Amino acid sequence: MIRDLIVSNRSYRRFHQEAAIDEQTLRELVDLARLSASGHNVQPLKYILSCNPEKNALIFPLLGWAGYLRDWPGPSEGERPAAYIVVLQDTEIRRDIGIDHGIAAQSILLGAREKGLGGCIIATIKKDALRSGLSIPTRYEILIVLALGKPKEKVVIDPVGPDGDIKYWRDSEGVHHVPKRALEDIIVR
Amino acid sequence: MIRDLIVSNRSYRRFHQEAAIDEQTLRELVDLARLSASGHNVQPLKYILSCNPEKNALIFPLLGWAGYLRDWPGPSEGERPAAYIVVLQDTEIRRDIGIDHGIAAQSILLGAREKGLGGCIIATIKKDALRSGLSIPTRYEILIVLALGKPKEKVVIDPVGPDGDIKYWRDSEGVHHVPKRALEDIIVR
Repeated sequence: MIRDLIVSNRSYRRFHQEAAIDEQTLRELVDLARLSASGHNVQPLKYILSCNPEKNALIFPLLGWAGYLRDWPGPSEGERPAAYIVVLQDTEIRRDIGIDHGIAAQSILLGAREKGLGGCIIATIKKDALRSGLSIPTRYEILIVLALGKPKEKVVIDPVGPDGDIKYWRDSEGVHHVPKRALEDIIVR
Repeated sequence: MIRDLIVSNRSYRRFHQEAAIDEQTLRELVDLARLSASGHNVQPLKYILSCNPEKNALIFPLLGWAGYLRDWPGPSEGERPAAYIVVLQDTEIRRDIGIDHGIAAQSILLGAREKGLGGCIIATIKKDALRSGLSIPTRYEILIVLALGKPKEKVVIDPVGPDGDIKYWRDSEGVHHVPKRALEDIIVR
Protein backbone atom coordinates (compact mmCIF):
# COMPACT_ATOMS: atom_id res chain seq x y z
CA MET A 1 0.00 0.00 0.00
CA ILE A 2 1.31 3.41 -0.94
CA ARG A 3 -0.05 4.80 2.34
CA ASP A 4 2.25 2.53 4.36
CA LEU A 5 5.21 3.65 2.29
CA ILE A 6 4.28 7.33 2.67
CA VAL A 7 3.84 6.99 6.45
CA SER A 8 7.16 5.19 6.70
CA ASN A 9 8.86 7.81 4.51
CA ARG A 10 9.86 10.27 7.20
CA SER A 11 12.71 12.79 6.98
CA TYR A 12 15.63 10.80 8.37
CA ARG A 13 18.79 12.62 9.44
CA ARG A 14 20.83 9.93 11.20
CA PHE A 15 22.04 6.89 9.34
CA HIS A 16 24.13 3.75 9.52
CA GLN A 17 26.90 5.49 7.61
CA GLU A 18 28.79 2.21 7.11
CA ALA A 19 25.87 0.79 5.09
CA ALA A 20 27.12 1.86 1.67
CA ILE A 21 24.79 2.68 -1.21
CA ASP A 22 26.09 1.84 -4.68
CA GLU A 23 25.77 3.95 -7.79
CA GLN A 24 23.35 1.51 -9.41
CA THR A 25 20.91 2.07 -6.55
CA LEU A 26 21.13 5.84 -7.04
CA ARG A 27 20.57 5.39 -10.77
CA GLU A 28 17.43 3.35 -10.10
CA LEU A 29 16.15 6.10 -7.82
CA VAL A 30 16.82 8.85 -10.37
CA ASP A 31 15.03 6.70 -12.93
CA LEU A 32 11.89 6.96 -10.77
CA ALA A 33 12.14 10.75 -11.01
CA ARG A 34 12.75 10.49 -14.75
CA LEU A 35 9.50 8.56 -15.16
CA SER A 36 7.48 11.04 -13.08
CA ALA A 37 5.48 14.02 -14.28
CA SER A 38 7.22 17.19 -15.48
CA GLY A 39 5.51 20.51 -16.21
CA HIS A 40 4.82 20.69 -19.96
CA ASN A 41 7.00 17.56 -20.04
CA VAL A 42 10.03 19.84 -20.41
CA GLN A 43 12.18 17.75 -18.01
CA PRO A 44 14.67 20.41 -16.91
CA LEU A 45 16.02 18.45 -13.93
CA LYS A 46 19.52 16.97 -13.90
CA TYR A 47 21.19 14.97 -11.13
CA ILE A 48 24.62 14.56 -9.58
CA LEU A 49 25.19 11.30 -7.72
CA SER A 50 27.52 10.85 -4.78
CA CYS A 51 28.16 7.58 -2.95
CA ASN A 52 31.86 7.50 -2.19
CA PRO A 53 33.29 8.71 1.13
CA GLU A 54 35.43 11.48 -0.38
CA LYS A 55 32.63 13.10 -2.38
CA ASN A 56 30.22 12.63 0.53
CA ALA A 57 32.67 14.35 2.87
CA LEU A 58 32.84 17.29 0.50
CA ILE A 59 29.03 17.65 0.36
CA PHE A 60 28.15 17.06 4.02
CA PRO A 61 29.46 20.29 5.63
CA LEU A 62 27.69 22.40 3.01
CA LEU A 63 24.22 21.33 4.13
CA GLY A 64 21.96 22.73 6.86
CA TRP A 65 20.53 20.13 9.24
CA ALA A 66 17.26 20.25 11.20
CA GLY A 67 16.82 23.98 11.83
CA TYR A 68 14.51 23.45 14.83
CA LEU A 69 17.08 21.33 16.72
CA ARG A 70 19.26 24.25 17.74
CA ASP A 71 21.61 22.25 19.92
CA TRP A 72 22.26 19.64 17.25
CA PRO A 73 24.76 20.53 14.54
CA GLY A 74 23.79 17.56 12.36
CA PRO A 75 24.72 13.89 12.29
CA SER A 76 28.10 12.95 13.74
CA GLU A 77 30.71 10.93 11.92
CA GLY A 78 29.36 7.38 11.68
CA GLU A 79 25.75 8.57 11.38
CA ARG A 80 26.09 10.63 8.23
CA PRO A 81 24.39 9.92 4.89
CA ALA A 82 25.90 7.18 2.75
CA ALA A 83 24.88 8.93 -0.45
CA TYR A 84 23.52 12.15 -1.92
CA ILE A 85 21.58 13.11 -5.00
CA VAL A 86 22.05 16.75 -5.94
CA VAL A 87 19.03 17.97 -7.93
CA LEU A 88 19.82 20.62 -10.51
CA GLN A 89 17.77 22.74 -12.87
CA ASP A 90 19.23 22.91 -16.37
CA THR A 91 18.53 26.56 -17.15
CA GLU A 92 19.36 26.01 -20.82
CA ILE A 93 16.22 23.85 -20.93
CA ARG A 94 13.98 25.94 -18.70
CA ARG A 95 14.61 29.03 -16.59
CA ASP A 96 11.56 29.25 -14.36
CA ILE A 97 11.21 26.69 -11.61
CA GLY A 98 7.97 24.78 -11.37
CA ILE A 99 7.15 21.91 -9.07
CA ASP A 100 9.17 19.23 -10.84
CA HIS A 101 11.74 18.96 -8.05
CA GLY A 102 9.04 18.36 -5.45
CA ILE A 103 7.59 15.57 -7.57
CA ALA A 104 11.04 14.12 -8.25
CA ALA A 105 12.08 14.25 -4.60
CA GLN A 106 8.97 12.38 -3.51
CA SER A 107 9.45 9.67 -6.16
CA ILE A 108 13.10 9.21 -5.18
CA LEU A 109 12.43 9.10 -1.45
CA LEU A 110 9.54 6.66 -1.79
CA GLY A 111 11.76 4.46 -3.93
CA ALA A 112 14.53 4.69 -1.35
CA ARG A 113 12.14 3.77 1.44
CA GLU A 114 10.99 0.70 -0.44
CA LYS A 115 14.65 -0.36 -0.60
CA GLY A 116 14.97 -0.03 3.18
CA LEU A 117 16.72 3.31 2.86
CA GLY A 118 15.51 6.73 3.88
CA GLY A 119 16.48 10.32 3.47
CA CYS A 120 15.89 13.98 3.84
CA ILE A 121 15.21 16.82 1.42
CA ILE A 122 17.69 19.58 2.15
CA ALA A 123 17.19 23.09 0.79
CA THR A 124 19.60 24.91 3.12
CA ILE A 125 22.75 24.59 1.04
CA LYS A 126 25.96 26.57 0.72
CA LYS A 127 25.40 26.69 -3.00
CA ASP A 128 28.52 28.59 -4.06
CA ALA A 129 30.75 26.19 -2.17
CA LEU A 130 28.88 23.17 -3.51
CA ARG A 131 29.13 24.49 -7.06
CA SER A 132 32.84 25.04 -6.63
CA GLY A 133 33.48 21.73 -4.85
CA LEU A 134 31.66 19.64 -7.43
CA SER A 135 32.64 21.84 -10.41
CA ILE A 136 29.00 22.38 -11.35
CA PRO A 137 28.73 24.45 -14.55
CA THR A 138 26.82 27.74 -14.29
CA ARG A 139 24.07 26.49 -16.60
CA TYR A 140 22.83 24.36 -13.70
CA GLU A 141 21.01 25.90 -10.77
CA ILE A 142 21.30 23.93 -7.53
CA LEU A 143 17.76 23.26 -6.25
CA ILE A 144 17.88 20.71 -3.45
CA VAL A 145 20.06 17.92 -2.11
CA LEU A 146 18.62 14.55 -1.12
CA ALA A 147 20.63 12.93 1.68
CA LEU A 148 20.25 9.15 1.73
CA GLY A 149 21.19 6.23 3.93
CA LYS A 150 19.95 3.38 6.04
CA PRO A 151 18.01 5.17 8.81
CA LYS A 152 19.36 4.97 12.35
CA GLU A 153 16.63 6.89 14.12
CA LYS A 154 12.98 6.52 14.92
CA VAL A 155 10.67 9.23 13.59
CA VAL A 156 7.04 9.41 14.68
CA ILE A 157 4.10 11.57 13.63
CA ASP A 158 2.15 13.32 16.39
CA PRO A 159 -0.97 15.48 16.15
CA VAL A 160 -0.35 19.22 16.37
CA GLY A 161 -1.20 20.29 19.92
CA PRO A 162 -3.58 23.06 21.07
CA ASP A 163 -0.79 25.66 20.84
CA GLY A 164 -0.47 25.00 17.10
CA ASP A 165 3.28 24.45 17.30
CA ILE A 166 4.55 22.52 14.25
CA LYS A 167 8.24 22.43 15.21
CA TYR A 168 9.65 18.93 15.27
CA TRP A 169 11.60 17.90 18.37
CA ARG A 170 13.64 15.04 19.75
CA ASP A 171 12.77 13.37 23.05
CA SER A 172 15.13 12.13 25.75
CA GLU A 173 15.32 8.72 24.09
CA GLY A 174 16.31 10.21 20.75
CA VAL A 175 12.96 9.68 19.07
CA HIS A 176 12.21 12.44 16.55
CA HIS A 177 8.64 13.77 16.80
CA VAL A 178 6.90 15.51 13.89
CA PRO A 179 3.58 17.28 14.63
CA LYS A 180 1.21 17.10 11.66
CA ARG A 181 -1.97 19.14 11.25
CA ALA A 182 -5.24 17.20 11.36
CA LEU A 183 -7.02 16.37 8.12
CA GLU A 184 -9.99 18.52 9.15
CA ASP A 185 -7.68 21.49 9.54
CA ILE A 186 -6.29 21.35 6.01
CA ILE A 187 -9.54 20.86 4.10
CA VAL A 188 -11.22 24.17 3.26
CA ARG A 189 -15.02 24.10 3.02
CA MET B 1 6.65 -2.05 -6.43
CA ILE B 2 6.69 1.73 -6.36
CA ARG B 3 8.30 1.72 -9.80
CA ASP B 4 5.26 0.03 -11.34
CA LEU B 5 2.99 2.59 -9.73
CA ILE B 6 5.15 5.49 -10.92
CA VAL B 7 5.28 4.14 -14.49
CA SER B 8 1.53 3.64 -14.46
CA ASN B 9 0.96 7.13 -13.01
CA ARG B 10 0.83 9.09 -16.27
CA SER B 11 -0.91 12.44 -16.76
CA TYR B 12 -4.42 11.37 -17.76
CA ARG B 13 -6.74 13.91 -19.36
CA ARG B 14 -9.71 11.78 -20.53
CA PHE B 15 -11.84 9.91 -18.06
CA HIS B 16 -14.93 7.79 -17.59
CA GLN B 17 -16.81 10.80 -16.26
CA GLU B 18 -19.72 8.64 -15.10
CA ALA B 19 -17.41 6.78 -12.69
CA ALA B 20 -18.05 8.98 -9.67
CA ILE B 21 -15.45 9.57 -6.95
CA ASP B 22 -16.80 10.10 -3.45
CA GLU B 23 -15.61 12.62 -0.91
CA GLN B 24 -14.18 9.92 1.34
CA THR B 25 -11.82 8.89 -1.46
CA LEU B 26 -10.65 12.48 -1.87
CA ARG B 27 -10.13 12.76 1.87
CA GLU B 28 -7.98 9.62 1.84
CA LEU B 29 -5.89 11.11 -0.95
CA VAL B 30 -5.40 14.44 0.84
CA ASP B 31 -4.39 12.45 3.91
CA LEU B 32 -1.48 11.05 1.89
CA ALA B 33 -0.34 14.61 1.22
CA ARG B 34 -0.83 15.49 4.88
CA LEU B 35 1.52 12.66 5.87
CA SER B 36 4.21 13.69 3.37
CA ALA B 37 7.20 15.94 3.92
CA SER B 38 6.78 19.70 4.26
CA GLY B 39 9.59 22.26 4.26
CA HIS B 40 10.47 23.05 7.91
CA ASN B 41 7.30 21.02 8.62
CA VAL B 42 5.32 24.27 8.31
CA GLN B 43 2.46 22.58 6.37
CA PRO B 44 1.05 25.63 4.58
CA LEU B 45 -1.05 23.65 2.08
CA LYS B 46 -4.84 23.55 2.25
CA TYR B 47 -7.24 21.71 -0.04
CA ILE B 48 -10.66 22.21 -1.61
CA LEU B 49 -12.43 19.01 -2.68
CA SER B 50 -14.90 18.76 -5.53
CA CYS B 51 -16.77 15.62 -6.56
CA ASN B 52 -20.28 16.69 -7.45
CA PRO B 53 -21.33 17.53 -11.00
CA GLU B 54 -22.25 21.17 -10.30
CA LYS B 55 -18.97 22.09 -8.62
CA ASN B 56 -17.02 20.10 -11.21
CA ALA B 57 -18.80 21.99 -14.01
CA LEU B 58 -17.77 25.26 -12.41
CA ILE B 59 -14.10 24.25 -12.19
CA PHE B 60 -13.65 22.54 -15.54
CA PRO B 61 -13.78 25.56 -17.93
CA LEU B 62 -11.26 27.44 -15.80
CA LEU B 63 -8.46 24.95 -16.49
CA GLY B 64 -5.98 24.77 -19.38
CA TRP B 65 -5.66 21.36 -21.00
CA ALA B 66 -2.66 19.82 -22.80
CA GLY B 67 -0.95 22.88 -24.26
CA TYR B 68 0.86 20.89 -26.94
CA LEU B 69 -2.36 19.45 -28.40
CA ARG B 70 -3.38 22.62 -30.18
CA ASP B 71 -6.40 21.15 -31.93
CA TRP B 72 -7.81 19.66 -28.75
CA PRO B 73 -9.70 22.00 -26.41
CA GLY B 74 -9.79 19.47 -23.58
CA PRO B 75 -11.95 16.50 -22.70
CA SER B 76 -15.50 16.53 -24.04
CA GLU B 77 -18.59 16.06 -21.90
CA GLY B 78 -18.61 12.44 -20.79
CA GLU B 79 -14.78 12.28 -20.61
CA ARG B 80 -14.21 15.00 -18.05
CA PRO B 81 -12.75 14.55 -14.55
CA ALA B 82 -15.05 13.11 -11.92
CA ALA B 83 -13.33 15.08 -9.17
CA TYR B 84 -10.84 17.83 -8.43
CA ILE B 85 -8.54 18.73 -5.59
CA VAL B 86 -7.63 22.41 -5.53
CA VAL B 87 -4.29 22.89 -3.77
CA LEU B 88 -3.97 26.18 -1.91
CA GLN B 89 -1.20 27.91 -0.02
CA ASP B 90 -2.33 29.41 3.26
CA THR B 91 -0.33 32.64 3.18
CA GLU B 92 -1.13 33.29 6.85
CA ILE B 93 1.02 30.24 7.60
CA ARG B 94 3.75 30.78 5.05
CA ARG B 95 4.19 33.30 2.25
CA ASP B 96 7.01 31.90 0.15
CA ILE B 97 6.31 28.82 -1.89
CA GLY B 98 8.62 25.86 -1.53
CA ILE B 99 8.25 22.45 -3.06
CA ASP B 100 5.48 21.16 -0.79
CA HIS B 101 2.87 21.20 -3.56
CA GLY B 102 5.04 19.06 -5.82
CA ILE B 103 5.49 16.52 -3.05
CA ALA B 104 1.77 16.62 -2.20
CA ALA B 105 0.70 16.24 -5.83
CA GLN B 106 2.88 13.19 -6.30
CA SER B 107 1.58 11.55 -3.11
CA ILE B 108 -2.03 12.21 -4.11
CA LEU B 109 -1.63 10.98 -7.68
CA LEU B 110 0.23 7.82 -6.65
CA GLY B 111 -2.56 7.13 -4.16
CA ALA B 112 -5.17 7.74 -6.84
CA ARG B 113 -3.39 5.40 -9.23
CA GLU B 114 -3.34 2.64 -6.65
CA LYS B 115 -7.12 3.02 -6.39
CA GLY B 116 -7.48 2.56 -10.18
CA LEU B 117 -7.87 6.28 -10.72
CA GLY B 118 -5.58 8.70 -12.46
CA GLY B 119 -5.17 12.38 -12.92
CA CYS B 120 -3.32 15.39 -14.11
CA ILE B 121 -1.57 18.29 -12.41
CA ILE B 122 -2.93 21.50 -13.88
CA ALA B 123 -1.12 24.80 -13.34
CA THR B 124 -2.82 26.76 -16.13
CA ILE B 125 -5.78 28.09 -14.18
CA LYS B 126 -8.04 31.12 -14.49
CA LYS B 127 -7.31 31.91 -10.88
CA ASP B 128 -9.48 34.99 -10.44
CA ALA B 129 -12.52 33.17 -11.81
CA LEU B 130 -11.80 30.09 -9.71
CA ARG B 131 -11.40 32.21 -6.57
CA SER B 132 -14.66 33.94 -7.29
CA GLY B 133 -16.55 30.76 -8.28
CA LEU B 134 -15.48 28.82 -5.21
CA SER B 135 -15.47 31.87 -2.87
CA ILE B 136 -11.84 31.26 -1.92
CA PRO B 137 -10.69 33.80 0.71
CA THR B 138 -7.74 36.01 -0.23
CA ARG B 139 -5.52 34.44 2.43
CA TYR B 140 -5.26 31.38 0.18
CA GLU B 141 -3.15 31.43 -2.95
CA ILE B 142 -4.28 28.99 -5.64
CA LEU B 143 -1.28 26.82 -6.56
CA ILE B 144 -2.44 23.90 -8.72
CA VAL B 145 -5.53 21.84 -9.46
CA LEU B 146 -5.44 18.05 -9.55
CA ALA B 147 -8.01 16.66 -11.98
CA LEU B 148 -9.03 13.09 -11.14
CA GLY B 149 -11.05 10.28 -12.64
CA LYS B 150 -11.01 6.76 -13.96
CA PRO B 151 -8.67 7.05 -16.97
CA LYS B 152 -10.17 6.52 -20.41
CA GLU B 153 -7.01 6.86 -22.46
CA LYS B 154 -3.79 5.02 -23.00
CA VAL B 155 -0.60 6.95 -22.25
CA VAL B 156 2.82 5.56 -23.19
CA ILE B 157 6.36 6.69 -22.54
CA ASP B 158 8.69 6.93 -25.55
CA PRO B 159 12.39 7.81 -25.68
CA VAL B 160 13.13 11.36 -26.81
CA GLY B 161 14.15 11.19 -30.48
CA PRO B 162 17.32 12.56 -32.10
CA ASP B 163 15.66 15.98 -32.63
CA GLY B 164 15.31 16.35 -28.86
CA ASP B 165 11.60 17.16 -29.08
CA ILE B 166 9.87 16.59 -25.73
CA LYS B 167 6.35 17.61 -26.81
CA TYR B 168 3.77 14.95 -26.11
CA TRP B 169 1.43 13.99 -28.96
CA ARG B 170 -1.56 11.82 -29.72
CA ASP B 171 -1.49 9.22 -32.48
CA SER B 172 -4.26 8.31 -34.93
CA GLU B 173 -5.57 5.71 -32.52
CA GLY B 174 -5.83 8.19 -29.67
CA VAL B 175 -2.81 6.90 -27.77
CA HIS B 176 -1.01 9.70 -25.94
CA HIS B 177 2.79 9.57 -26.35
CA VAL B 178 5.16 11.19 -23.85
CA PRO B 179 8.86 11.43 -24.83
CA LYS B 180 11.13 11.10 -21.81
CA ARG B 181 14.85 11.90 -21.75
CA ALA B 182 17.20 8.94 -21.26
CA LEU B 183 18.70 8.32 -17.82
CA GLU B 184 22.19 8.95 -19.20
CA ASP B 185 21.08 12.39 -20.36
CA ILE B 186 19.90 13.57 -16.97
CA ILE B 187 22.85 12.41 -14.86
CA VAL B 188 25.63 15.00 -14.74
CA ARG B 189 29.16 13.63 -14.33
